[in-house]
Order: sequence, then structure tokens, then C-alpha cells
Amino acid sequence: MQGKVALEEHFALTETLWDSARFAPEADWPELKARLIDIQDRRLREMDAHGIEMMLLSLNAPAVQAVPVLRDAIELARRANDFLAEQVQRRPDRFQGLAALPMQDPDAATHELVRAVTELGFRGALVNGFSEAHGLPRAIYYDTKPFWPFWAELERLGVPFYLHPRNPRPEDAPIYDGHPWLLGPTWAFGQETAVHALRLMGSGLFDAHPAIQVVIGHLGEGLPYSLWRIDNRNKWMSEQNRYPAKRKIADYFRENFYITTSGNFRTQTLIDAMLEVGADRILFSADWPFENIDHAAQWFDTVAIAEADRLKIGRTNAWSLFKLDTPAR
Amino acid sequence: MQGKVALEEHFALTETLWDSARFAPEADWPELKARLIDIQDRRLREMDAHGIEMMLLSLNAPAVQAVPVLRDAIELARRANDFLAEQVQRRPDRFQGLAALPMQDPDAATHELVRAVTELGFRGALVNGFSEAHGLPRAIYYDTKPFWPFWAELERLGVPFYLHPRNPRPEDAPIYDGHPWLLGPTWAFGQETAVHALRLMGSGLFDAHPAIQVVIGHLGEGLPYSLWRIDNRNKWMSEQNRYPAKRKIADYFRENFYITTSGNFRTQTLIDAMLEVGADRILFSADWPFENIDHAAQWFDTVAIAEADRLKIGRTNAWSLFKLDTPAR
Amino acid sequence: MQGKVALEEHFALTETLWDSARFAPEADWPELKARLIDIQDRRLREMDAHGIEMMLLSLNAPAVQAVPVLRDAIELARRANDFLAEQVQRRPDRFQGLAALPMQDPDAATHELVRAVTELGFRGALVNGFSEAHGLPRAIYYDTKPFWPFWAELERLGVPFYLHPRNPRPEDAPIYDGHPWLLGPTWAFGQETAVHALRLMGSGLFDAHPAIQVVIGHLGEGLPYSLWRIDNRNKWMSEQNRYPAKRKIADYFRENFYITTSGNFRTQTLIDAMLEVGADRILFSADWPFENIDHAAQWFDTVAIAEADRLKIGRTNAWSLFKLDTPAR
Amino acid sequence: MQGKVALEEHFALTETLWDSARFAPEADWPELKARLIDIQDRRLREMDAHGIEMMLLSLNAPAVQAVPVLRDAIELARRANDFLAEQVQRRPDRFQGLAALPMQDPDAATHELVRAVTELGFRGALVNGFSEAHGLPRAIYYDTKPFWPFWAELERLGVPFYLHPRNPRPEDAPIYDGHPWLLGPTWAFGQETAVHALRLMGSGLFDAHPAIQVVIGHLGEGLPYSLWRIDNRNKWMSEQNRYPAKRKIADYFRENFYITTSGNFRTQTLIDAMLEVGADRILFSADWPFENIDHAAQWFDTVAIAEADRLKIGRTNAWSLFKLDTPAR
Ligand SMILES: [Zn+2]
Ligand SMILES: [Zn+2]
Ligand SMILES: [Zn+2]
Ligand SMILES: [Zn+2]
Repeated sequence: MQGKVALEEHFALTETLWDSARFAPEADWPELKARLIDIQDRRLREMDAHGIEMMLLSLNAPAVQAVPVLRDAIELARRANDFLAEQVQRRPDRFQGLAALPMQDPDAATHELVRAVTELGFRGALVNGFSEAHGLPRAIYYDTKPFWPFWAELERLGVPFYLHPRNPRPEDAPIYDGHPWLLGPTWAFGQETAVHALRLMGSGLFDAHPAIQVVIGHLGEGLPYSLWRIDNRNKWMSEQNRYPAKRKIADYFRENFYITTSGNFRTQTLIDAMLEVGADRILFSADWPFENIDHAAQWFDTVAIAEADRLKIGRTNAWSLFKLDTPAR
Repeated sequence: MQGKVALEEHFALTETLWDSARFAPEADWPELKARLIDIQDRRLREMDAHGIEMMLLSLNAPAVQAVPVLRDAIELARRANDFLAEQVQRRPDRFQGLAALPMQDPDAATHELVRAVTELGFRGALVNGFSEAHGLPRAIYYDTKPFWPFWAELERLGVPFYLHPRNPRPEDAPIYDGHPWLLGPTWAFGQETAVHALRLMGSGLFDAHPAIQVVIGHLGEGLPYSLWRIDNRNKWMSEQNRYPAKRKIADYFRENFYITTSGNFRTQTLIDAMLEVGADRILFSADWPFENIDHAAQWFDTVAIAEADRLKIGRTNAWSLFKLDTPAR
Repeated sequence: MQGKVALEEHFALTETLWDSARFAPEADWPELKARLIDIQDRRLREMDAHGIEMMLLSLNAPAVQAVPVLRDAIELARRANDFLAEQVQRRPDRFQGLAALPMQDPDAATHELVRAVTELGFRGALVNGFSEAHGLPRAIYYDTKPFWPFWAELERLGVPFYLHPRNPRPEDAPIYDGHPWLLGPTWAFGQETAVHALRLMGSGLFDAHPAIQVVIGHLGEGLPYSLWRIDNRNKWMSEQNRYPAKRKIADYFRENFYITTSGNFRTQTLIDAMLEVGADRILFSADWPFENIDHAAQWFDTVAIAEADRLKIGRTNAWSLFKLDTPAR
Repeated sequence: MQGKVALEEHFALTETLWDSARFAPEADWPELKARLIDIQDRRLREMDAHGIEMMLLSLNAPAVQAVPVLRDAIELARRANDFLAEQVQRRPDRFQGLAALPMQDPDAATHELVRAVTELGFRGALVNGFSEAHGLPRAIYYDTKPFWPFWAELERLGVPFYLHPRNPRPEDAPIYDGHPWLLGPTWAFGQETAVHALRLMGSGLFDAHPAIQVVIGHLGEGLPYSLWRIDNRNKWMSEQNRYPAKRKIADYFRENFYITTSGNFRTQTLIDAMLEVGADRILFSADWPFENIDHAAQWFDTVAIAEADRLKIGRTNAWSLFKLDTPAR
């Protein structure tokens, strides 16, 4: 189909390039590097060739989230967002921006979010999972109370938050030791992001801020398949939902989350997702440059769903969610 | 339907009862305890009421796997299997046994497996995930080479191996810290078991022993939904399958694994699983006493699948896989 | 779910009662009769008990369509609509009307449609398939040019047209001779209505009047399952679409048709329909009093679809299509 | 996939060629004619190119069924079968035969069936819907008692009966008058064959001869989508199943029918069929030369189903049903 929007699509600054090197075999690194650095050239040709009208761009991973010194993280996010804003200005009809955020510090993250949305005209934020901070033994997840003012501001701004995967720190997931092939998109990305999303849902955040919209990729990082079990295991027991939030996890997943097709071009999986969350909460994406645009588009353009749903998932859902009809602020 | 077989169905010895206490709120513990201890009474009445002709019984979790002293683990497994054999002898038309195994030591596990199958007439083994051993800093997974003679013997015996969930050790999964609701069947069970299964598949074990059949519960612990992505992420890159095994993960999953419906009574999820692995590799199960038999059976008896597939999943697949027509040895 | 709307729901005038007698065995006729005559009593109790907030009511079948004298047909339609308007006025919060129309004559039908919509406040029309007229050897289908002014007026009024089944005349379908069980809802209804709908689609009517919305029941009278084949059989041949209309049949079916669940409470069939036309064009209905409301509602309230789609199909699609938020004119 | 079997694949004798001319626009007739006449040349190349190891061949339609003089019908069937037997003998590894039968007369049909199976080594029969006979005002369907000895012989021989479509006689289906595009594969084929199949199911034939296996094409001629409604319409009424047969229609459809993918290369439709009858009763077919082999094969080889089911539907089901491992008699 023509007119598609894709929204988990990455670029790199020179200084964040190496964050992506681990995800490609050496032989493929030159190609991946070239893809990451390019915005206005090959990317546009790929989009033209495969019916993608608009890309929402975001910095590669983990980038800002893995910068352990707060000031460095703040500056990197700022530089990345400024650079992206310039790129968007050159082709606002083809590119829009999602902000990188220094989530190591909720105030700094809030500040940069406001700046990116109100000054740079960004359409939302994309954050690469948990953050690391110098001296902190723990990975920083965003369900904790110190982050709630950040989420309140996000809700106020009315922009979505893309929770993008990253790998766990090695010390946090010894189950993968000796099995590096399980890291990254093969498996660890999904587990990491799904649990982060579940922590958000269980925290009560969406009771306090019901208008927040979180986007997760890869057809929901495995969550749709297990959504019923999460809420219904051991159903005869007296105590259910042993978390602070008030409602079932599925309620939040269906009202506060969108999922994208990035990197998961599987018809069966898409159908299952549609039967769990409905076509209104699914969005086309490729995950360029890690995944090929032709793989994404050729699959999606013919996948066995209703044409009305193809249009929604391919275009109109994103157009509404990111308010692409309104000029950037 | 009448004549169903259920195969992830647990009992407890007095000494393993407490392993299950953590999985029930205090108010429900008396009920859960009573269910676990009972075999010949209420269990049979539940089976009669809901069309289950046969249960393959197994010890509760983690039980043997969490006994850190090898000798204790060996003795516990032996006692549990002897007890189960007695129970099966009272109603071999309604119960058959799956062996508990001291996987802390491959030789000990092999020895007990042979004894359980050839002397006690058990139909296979059910192991509760990784094992712990005193003095070992690591959880013991079974994909490593020391376990291959065990797997060779399993293949030789021609009996299936049920890889049942357990929780990760707290130090191995800090992502759940402060979120105990994510442990157990809600989420952690699936992640733990799925990765263990993936490690087996990636190890090359099934190249060496292609006749091994592993059973996993809960409609595949999330794997069917992500199966395509595991094999197809970053498909343009030159290097795929960066693991010792020779084939795609999906090939092993489809030829060396069966999945059961235990604790995952969700139509959408079952349909997705069927479109990934086919009805011949899916088996009905309830996960009694953690899940209710009526919940499992009422769902399954009317779930929106072909009647031919209902018969396979409900009965005949298990009958073939566990050779229930042949008298126990 | 609460708040459902149901829209293929019938009543009878005393004089049309006998039209329905053929559809019930003698033993069930008293019950069917009582159901057909009742509007304000048992019907409301059934609606309350099963979460139906609103019913769009229509005259039973074939009624007006089988009255061979035009003047009689006109008068019957008028009487039925006046009676229904009175009933609606008693509970406009629970009932709204769909007009019976004397389609034997396009002008008469147009006149009664305008009256029903603008004077009686009806939400659309429901017509029982082809019409018969004294002296005409042919059944009258509505794709022919004399009916286009009628359709133009329908489009102008902005109300939907429910194409409801009836049986073929015996001389028109000898294939059922000696097999009366194939008549009615078992099979003949579907064939009759599907072909009538196809004739409308192939005629070019929807090229000329693209805003017309036709509703058909029983999950589309078999059309979704065959929709691809209709447009794609013998695809290599040079000549496709040998009908006056400009586009593919599927295009019209997806843009000019809605389907309801009336009398087809089958999960697999609903899923197939959703994957063909999408959840936005499917509407809950029971087909009372021929089908039980509890059968319809209990199935629909738990059918394996996304909750967002349940809400659409159960309520909001109908609310929009029939403009139930606006007061009747 | 390699090794596929296709079984609704037609050829023509010179004298039956014209029966197919009506199904192609004039511009395509030379191509269709060439395809029909060829067996050993282009057909094999198409099969090689698209992974079809074996075709079960049958005469084009309506051919024998439309020959009104019994003696002519008998002779045509005999000539066609003899010709086909010769063709099969040239490449028994690639072609096997399905017999044409003069169903105008049950005895003649039985005689030719026995001859074709026992002398020519045919694997079953393919009949083009109802038969016509000089002087008979009615189309001859095969559910009537005079045909039961034929069916008994078919059961005794253990070979399947392919009930292939044909168009209704114009006088029997005036609903298509003026809409010739609805004839043939677009719609009329399906209606004609579905009702014929339903008449067989309702007649009690399969109570008397439970081992009979009937094959129908085009993913079941619409039946799977409506199967539930056929048995469940008006479920509250006291009288169900008003036909001579003892069981539900769905029981016969699931135990006495196979369906093929001929001419219906639609993923959604296949999934629905699988959820109704299961993968064991679905068979790959193309409907060559009316449909392209590449269209059929390219769709089927990648359609979104489990690999185990692809193998069954593509090959092993047919191999079993037609006993392709046993040498022809
Ligand atoms: Zn990404
Ligand atoms: Zn269990
Ligand atoms: Zn009706
Ligand atoms: Zn054919």
C-alpha cells in the first residue's frame, strides 16, 4: 500500500554508532553503519520504493540510556534531538522526530521532553529501555514514583512514549551466559521490554494518568500471547492482581499501549495480536536499519487481514496517534 | 469431551508441600494443600466430572530441583517416584507416572530415569527447570555437554521429558525485584522455561538425538508467538543462527517439542499455537491443583477448533506420545 | 457486555403472523407466535437479561415482499410502519424502527421510505429479499435500473438498507425439491440473499451512489468466505469483472456493506469475517424471535475477539451507522 | 514445498473441449484449449517448476454429465477413461487417474467405476455434479435411493468420489438470468455443489455407508463458513434435523468429506476451513488449467499455517486417501 507510516526507525550520530556495532556480524557492519548514518538519501529511496510516506525517526539503542554520567546523557540527548530536528526540517513531509531522553534523571528527562515537543516539534519520545547511572547498582526502570512527574508531563503534552528494547546488563541476566545468540532481537529484547511494560502496568501509573500512551515494538514483545494468563493464572485463588494498580493488566494493555510490527513480520502473530488488542492499536513499522524495509513492506502489503485494517495499521492509526495532520509546534 | 488425558498434573509429598506454599495466598493454602495431597479421592471426582480419563502425575515444583545436596535430591526423587508408582498401581486405568529426577547430577538423573521407566513403568519424566547444587554459583541448565548422555538414554528409552517451570533464583533476575507478582505463572515461569528450551534447541542436542521429545506447558511458554522472529530477525545480515545447532530453531520446536494447554485457557493463543506447530503437537492439560480442572475442561471442550483437532489435543496425541496403549514395563 | 444494540429483530402484525408459521414446527408455533406479537413485555425482559440496550425492530418475513397486489403491499407496509412507530414512541430509549417497504414498485417504496424516515423517525429500512407482483413471471430484484431512483433517495436520506432473507419461489429453485429442510435459514436464505447482494454489487449501483450502506445478516450470508474467489477465479484470463460495475466485488462489499451476527453464533466464522471486512463493518444481532437472545448474547459476550472489537460490534458501530445519538426526525 | 499432490486437475478429449469454451473469453480460448489438450509436456513442466510431484487427472466439465443420451454418456466415459489410462501409463510416477462416470444411470456408473478402478487402476472417480438425461425434466442428483448401490460399490472399492462443480441448467436457476458473470466459478458452481453435497449428507447415505469419502473443491464450496448455522439455526425449536439422516450435517462433513484448495487461494478462507474440519481433511489442488499452477503453488508454499499442516495438505493426506503407495490394481 502507498502512504504507510513507519515509526520504529533509527539513525545514529557518529558518537552513538558503536552502540549498534554489537548487533551486526563484522561483515555486515559497513552496511549497517551506512544505513544508520544516512537519512536523506537511501532512506528516502527505500521509503519511495516501498510505499512509506512518513518515518518517525529515533536515535539508535541503547545510546542515551547507557551513558552513565548524567551530564553526558543530557548533552547527548540534546545533541541528538537538535540534529534530528534539522533533518526533519529538511523534509517535514517525510520525516518527523521522536525525542531521545536522559531518563537517568526524571527532571532532566522531563525538561528535554518539553523542549523536544514544544520547541523542536517532535511527535513523542523513544527511550531504549532502562537507564544506567554511574554509581547506581540497579538498572533504572520507569515505573517508580520519582518518574511519575515525568509521565504526568507526557500526558499533559499528549504525545506517545515508545518503549524500545535494549539488552539487560550481563550481571542482571545470567541465564544468557554463554548463549550470546539469545541476546538482542532473538529473545532478550522482548523479555526486557515486556517486563518493563508490565512493571508500568502493575504500578498504578495508568490509574493516575489514564491518557498516557506507550508504544512497544515487535508485535508487543510477546505480551499478547500471554495476556490472558497474566490476569487469569490460578483464578480460583482468593487473591488476584497482587500489584498496586487497580485493574487487570489486560485493561491497561488495551487502553494505554500500542504495538508495532517492527521486526516481526509474521502473519500468525499479527492475527493473534489483532484478536487480542484489535486493529486500532497496531501500527506498521520496520525497525530500519536493523530490518529491511522491503521485508517489512512486502509482507505487510499482502498480509492476510482486512483491507480496512491494513489501512489503519499501515497509516491512519499512526496519523491519529501522532497527530500528523497538525503542524509541528 | 470424554476420554481426555491431562499431563501437567501435580501432587505433593508431605516433605515437598511447602514448595507450593509460596504460590498461594495464605487464605488459599489449606485448599491448595488438600488438593496436592489428594490423589485417589477428589482428584478422581474432578476427573470424572470433567471428562478426564487419564492423568499423568508428577511431583510439585521445584521440589527435587531445589534440593542443594545431591544425596538428598536423589533420595527425594526416589521416594517421590516410589510413592507415585504405588498410587498408579491402585488405578493404572486413571493414573500414570512421570518421574522426578535429580538433575543436579546427570548420572544420578539417568539412573533414576531408567529405574522409573523400566522398573516402575513410568511414561516419561517431568523436571522443574534448572537445578541447584550446593556450592555451585550457577543454576544448572541441561543443554550442556555433561547432560548429553542423559538425553541419549532418554532417547533410547523413547519417553518424553516434560520441562516444567520454576522461578529464577532472586540473584539471577533482579528485574523482578520489588515486583513479586511477576514471579511464578504470571510471567517469570514462562521466561525461565522458554530460555531453557531455547538453550536446548540452540545447543545441537537435537541434531545428535533427533528422536528426543520435550514437552513444555502453558501453550509453549510464549515461544510460538516469537518463533518466527527468533529465526528471522535481521535477516539481511550475512550471519544467521549463531549457535552450535545446525538448523533453525523453529525446526527443532516443531520436531522435538510438544506444548500443552496447562494454565493457558485462551482461545486466541491456542489458535496461534495451532497455526505455528499444528494440532498434532498440542496436548490438553490443566495444571491441577494450581489451576482448576473445570476451568481447563469447560474451556477446552468448547474451544473454537475443529472436532478432529479437539480429539487429537484432548486425547489421541497424548495416547500416542506416552504409548498409553502399551502396558507399563 | 452491557449496552448492546441488536438490529435484525422482528415482530409481526396479526396479519403477517402466518408468514412465519412455516418456519416453526407445529409444536413451536405457539411460542414463536407469542414472541412475534410481543414487543413491550418479554422482549424487554430478554433485552435486560442479556445486556441489549437497543433493538432496531422490523416486520417479519416475507410479509410485504410476498403481497402480490401493489395496493395491498403499500397498505401493509404503511400499517406496519405506523404500528411500529407507535411502539417505538413508547420506549424510544429501547426501540427504534426499520421500515417495511413495498418494493414491488420503486416509486411506492421511495415514498414510504421517505415517510418512514422523515415523518416516523425510522433509522432505515429492512426489506425481505426480492418482491413478487401479480402477473409478473419474475421475482423482482433491486439491482435493475428502475430501482436506482429509490437507491438515490436512500443515499440522500443517509439511512441503511437491511437486505433480509426470504426463500426463493419453488419454481425458481428446483434444487431444493424434496428437501424442504434446505429452505429457510439452513441454506436457501443465504444463497438467495448473497446472490441478490452480488447483483447489487455487480450492477454499478455503488459507483453511482457510493454512500449507500446495505446491511446483510448471518455474518454475510456466506459471502466473506468466497469473496476472494469471486474476484480472483481464472485470474490469468484476459477478461475479469464481466459486469457493469467498475471495481472489484470485494471493494463494494467492504465499502457499501455491513454484516450482522444474526443467527450465526460461530466463533470461527466471525474471525474469518473480521479478517475479510474488519471489525468496523460487523454488527451484533440475534434474529429474535427465530433465534434466542440468550444464545446470541452469551456467545457474543465471550467470543474470542479483542475487547475493543467487542465494543464496536456489540454497540458503537450500530450507534454510528444508525445515528442513534441524534433524535429521530 | 516439493512433492505436492494436486487432484482437481483436468484435461479434455477433442470431443469434450467445447464444454470448457464457455468458461473462457474468446481471447483466452486458444490458451485454455492448449492447456486442456496437453498432458505430457507443458503440464509436466508446470508441475516441475512448482513442486508438484503427482497429479490426479480428470476429464473437464460437464462432459459426461451433460450428455443426454445414456449410451453416448457411457461411451464417452469409457473413451475418456481409456485415454486417461494410457496417459497415466506413460508416467505413473507423475499422473494417476480419476474416472469419468455416466451417472445418468446408476448401473452404468457402477460398471464403469469398477472397470476404471480394477482394470485401469484408477484411484477414484470425479463427477461433474448432477447429470442430465434425455426426456427427464429434472437434473439427476445422486442422493436418491437408486444411486445407493453405486455408493455401496464405491465404499467396497475404497476409493474417493470427487464431486466437481457444474452450472445449473438455466431453467433451474433464474436468479442468474441477465447476470452470466455469476455463473461458473464466480458463484453458481459453489451453490450447485454445496447443495448437492448437503443433499447427500441429509439423505442418510453416510449412515448406511459410513466409509464413503467424498471430495469437494474450492475449500468446501462455501460449506465450512455456514456449517454451524446449518445445524444450529433456530436451536430452541423442538424439531431439529428434519432430514432422513441420523446425525448432524457437520458430523458427516467432518467424517465423509475432504475439501481441496482448488481455485480458492485465500489464506483467511483456508484458516477458517482448518478451524472447522482440521488439517487432516484438506488437500492441495490447483484446478488446472482453469487456474494457474503458479498461483496455487506460490500461495500454498508460503501460506500462514504450520509446516506440519503444509506437509499434510500439500502431500501426505492425498497420499493416504488415494493410497498412492500401493501400485495400481
Ligand atoms: Zn528498533
Ligand atoms: Zn505445573
Ligand atoms: Zn431475520
Ligand atoms: Zn475443476
